[in-house]
Amino acid sequence: MDASYRRAGTGSGSAPRSVEDIYKDYRSRRSAILRALTHDVEEFYALCDPEKENLCLYGYANEAWEVALPAEEVPTELPEPALGINFARDGMNRGDWLALVAVHSDSWLVSVAFYYAARLNRSDRGWI
Amino acid sequence: MDASYRRAGTGSGSAPRSVEDIYKDYRSRRSAILRALTHDVEEFYALCDPEKENLCLYGYANEAWEVALPAEEVPTELPEPALGINFARDGMNRGDWLALVAVHSDSWLVSVAFYYAARLNRSDRGWI
Repeated sequence: MDASYRRAGTGSGSAPRSVEDIYKDYRSRRSAILRALTHDVEEFYALCDPEKENLCLYGYANEAWEVALPAEEVPTELPEPALGINFARDGMNRGDWLALVAVHSDSWLVSVAFYYAARLNRSDRGWI
Repeated sequence: MDASYRRAGTGSGSAPRSVEDIYKDYRSRRSAILRALTHDVEEFYALCDPEKENLCLYGYANEAWEVALPAEEVPTELPEPALGINFARDGMNRGDWLALVAVHSDSWLVSVAFYYAARLNRSDRGWI
């Protein structure tokens, strides 16, 4: 998965440009993360191997999730999720670790939405 | 400056535990960032040397700002600000670069506030 995919989350290469589209992006990314932490939790847990390099949980606008290395090029085009979640996995109670990832992920989702929103002008924001 | 200072931002080692305290923490960190990007901009600009390692702009709850390397221990106790802001400095118009740092910083401030807020229970949140 290349960086442009990661940035846009849809493969389209374009950032959401209205409040509605930012909310849709947020909702889809959140849905991806939720699935990773619930329905797909066994797969997610196994992927977060502490023996691997420092990994992140990404949720994308196409509702896919991915455990992957952080973006190589910095500064990144989007805020990055918490780094190295895999290193904490085996030193904690499983539920506590999942809660830690969930809180970091929630915080990341909000930061992505606010990052996109910063580009909106007065009219985009719906102020008349 | 050690990691415990960075986490708490006051040297006290404790995270804000009420909506009011989280807002105070946010306001102080934001004030620090604002100063770095306005009144102290020459110093800030000079510190973001692209020849150095990948740097971040931190704003702390004591209203101090710092350009520093990212936290070494991952996953970190708090969401991290954008990494490698110094690498983008010389390839952009100065105003555009400062705007990029500002947008990433705003997004980081929100992510820290939401991260703290996740720990609040029903009563902390003021729901009766």
